[in-house]
Amino acid sequence: MRMYDIIEKKKHGGELCRDEIYEMIKLYTEDKIPDYQMSSLLMAIYFKGMTPEETSNLTDAMATSGDTVDLSMFGDRSVDKHSTGGVGDKTTLIVTPIVSAAGGIVAKMSGRGLGHTGGTVDKLESFPGFKTSLSPSEFKNQVSEIGIAVIGQSANLAPADKKLYALRDVTATVDSIPLIASSIMSKKLAAGTHSIVLDVKCGSGAFMQTPEKARELALAMVKIGKLRGRKTAALITNMDIPLGHAIGNALEVKEAIEVLRGKGPDDLREVCLALSSVMIELSCKLTQGEAEKLARETLESGKAYTQFIRWIEKQGGDVSYVENPEKFGKSKFIKEVYAEKDGYILSCNAERIGIAAVSLGAGRATKDDTIDFKAGIIMDKKPGDKISRGDVIAILHTDRENALAEAENIILSAIKISDVKTDSGKMIYDTVR
Amino acid sequence: MRMYDIIEKKKHGGELCRDEIYEMIKLYTEDKIPDYQMSSLLMAIYFKGMTPEETSNLTDAMATSGDTVDLSMFGDRSVDKHSTGGVGDKTTLIVTPIVSAAGGIVAKMSGRGLGHTGGTVDKLESFPGFKTSLSPSEFKNQVSEIGIAVIGQSANLAPADKKLYALRDVTATVDSIPLIASSIMSKKLAAGTHSIVLDVKCGSGAFMQTPEKARELALAMVKIGKLRGRKTAALITNMDIPLGHAIGNALEVKEAIEVLRGKGPDDLREVCLALSSVMIELSCKLTQGEAEKLARETLESGKAYTQFIRWIEKQGGDVSYVENPEKFGKSKFIKEVYAEKDGYILSCNAERIGIAAVSLGAGRATKDDTIDFKAGIIMDKKPGDKISRGDVIAILHTDRENALAEAENIILSAIKISDVKTDSGKMIYDTVR
Repeated sequence: MRMYDIIEKKKHGGELCRDEIYEMIKLYTEDKIPDYQMSSLLMAIYFKGMTPEETSNLTDAMATSGDTVDLSMFGDRSVDKHSTGGVGDKTTLIVTPIVSAAGGIVAKMSGRGLGHTGGTVDKLESFPGFKTSLSPSEFKNQVSEIGIAVIGQSANLAPADKKLYALRDVTATVDSIPLIASSIMSKKLAAGTHSIVLDVKCGSGAFMQTPEKARELALAMVKIGKLRGRKTAALITNMDIPLGHAIGNALEVKEAIEVLRGKGPDDLREVCLALSSVMIELSCKLTQGEAEKLARETLESGKAYTQFIRWIEKQGGDVSYVENPEKFGKSKFIKEVYAEKDGYILSCNAERIGIAAVSLGAGRATKDDTIDFKAGIIMDKKPGDKISRGDVIAILHTDRENALAEAENIILSAIKISDVKTDSGKMIYDTVR
Repeated sequence: MRMYDIIEKKKHGGELCRDEIYEMIKLYTEDKIPDYQMSSLLMAIYFKGMTPEETSNLTDAMATSGDTVDLSMFGDRSVDKHSTGGVGDKTTLIVTPIVSAAGGIVAKMSGRGLGHTGGTVDKLESFPGFKTSLSPSEFKNQVSEIGIAVIGQSANLAPADKKLYALRDVTATVDSIPLIASSIMSKKLAAGTHSIVLDVKCGSGAFMQTPEKARELALAMVKIGKLRGRKTAALITNMDIPLGHAIGNALEVKEAIEVLRGKGPDDLREVCLALSSVMIELSCKLTQGEAEKLARETLESGKAYTQFIRWIEKQGGDVSYVENPEKFGKSKFIKEVYAEKDGYILSCNAERIGIAAVSLGAGRATKDDTIDFKAGIIMDKKPGDKISRGDVIAILHTDRENALAEAENIILSAIKISDVKTDSGKMIYDTVR
């Protein structure tokens, strides 16, 4: 195999064979192919794409480049969920206990937040004592015992993807559907569950800005999953506006607890039930209708809430925070933001709201930043809501007094107010099976 | 300027502005832009191309990245010729004395041979004592005195191009018209002549395999020259078969001398007169008709031959070799290759003949190989020529006895013999002004 020939082949739109792809990923991971050849190939892939077969081989080659998790002991009941990343996305906290209380096995690795999107691992660490790092045997024992475990990503999970992604990030080759799909799916394959449900976010706060692009990515990922022998489905969900009302780690945890207690925002509950249904459908082998009914019952009966408490407790978190969420504490500065005119909420740019939350301390601008778990934003106005000048449209929570003015400005510019009432927009665009 | 933004812009087909290109080439030459970003941009350029304005700026940025030659003392009379490289291409040896004897100023840097194509500097060094390295003042003094000097390329000529070319060579990004055109023209601009005549070779022994591709490259280079204020023209010439009969340094020099003495192969004379005419037209400001007449007269009257002797002598070469070419000596092994059947020569793959000549010692397979000046091949059969089984179709000259069998095989497979007589093909496809 000569890397030059591989670049030349792809440049002319040729299909790379299985051996070429595995050998190339192996050599690249071992630093035996220079970055300048790989980046040239990545740009050729950007222009010429990859066939499903090529994408599937690339994904598996990356998945098997490092540690893989063996969940075969759970047969075909293990299920994972992956979100492409959004603002206010606390679905894992809600979906995980619903699915496991309904009989699914959720054994999952989650990421940390970076940039304007949050990460589940950070949200879970809002609970004092919560351990996001378990040994492989601790992880499996917990899953066996309570049907649920969520930990941080192993450092050696799909190292080829890590190396390739870092290169794509600096060579303007991120936005290629086969490359995005294989990157996400390589980590899901390595994480070992039998079923995979993907939440492809779509809109102003997501990487995929249109339903068409989101659908293209969803199809590519579902195809990979199936070609690799995993049951795979994808939901395309709305990320034009933040999901729910809360953005920021402890604020989001509190909102998740509300939903598990049968309250909380409608949009968030709708997305969580849709994701849970598909996860239950795949892992418990039910029809779509049965799964939807079971998901709803599990949430409404309080079983999911009970399961949430078991989970947090089992993983070392202080469950008194679940029962008394006020224990999460309050930020030093809590400031209301007021509407500047009468009208109806037209839109709310999720990415900009996410950036404002980071500036208040809720996220990381760079990998080494520390997070203020209490910081964030509460926004309970949604598109279509009527507002009057002076109404509260957001509440900022922060310990950084000097960040308040800028965050307020970002929020005022991110929310568009119209004279005419428009539709609130749907939350679930499509399901790809 | 962020290199990432430049890649992203080009990827989407945008036009890079002047400052972006100059800054990028400056930083890349200073090793401040990593190869992996540059190779990603090169691949994006392969797919998205460059506008004439971008190509012109890139060319000038590379031309001014190192030493440049100031020939302003010669006003608008200085002229350079560049061939894109071929097999048996000894035109510089013939064209240079014709043009300078006709009143043009030929001050020129030439390359060495690599791979299957030869280089003028190697051919000139067949003359014992010939100096291909002159100081800038020696170079200009000689040009002032006799209107002619040909030296090897300065080590610091367009270093940005050198670095970029090395990267293109390993990232499958060589075959892009704007990149080829800017690479060639950057060296021509740095070499400082007021006029530039390009000999774009086309066919089996050339980089451009079809007249359409050759024409595209010719147009791109002429456009660059004009945008940078140089009088520029290009000829597209036939390189389906080796030019003339001789391949190999001393053999080619002997053939060039024959042409200068009014004999030699017709195809070679035709190409040399065409190139000389355009060079005279540009440098002496004559009409096309006047220039053609003057070129022919200069050759036929022997003025060009006299000028050749002056040139070789002035640059330290032993001119007794011009008058007695047998002094170049003979190879230890001279072997005839015979036609295996009756018929007509249909084609003769120039690249393969070039490779056979290298194997006999006439060229370099790698940069550090030394050359046997006497080695090479004589092939006086051209497409359309009638041959009988057993006729001599090539004569091999080498000191390497063990290279003979393979070279013979290559030649027999490179020459196609047909039952039907076909056209010999024309030598000059087009002129781009």
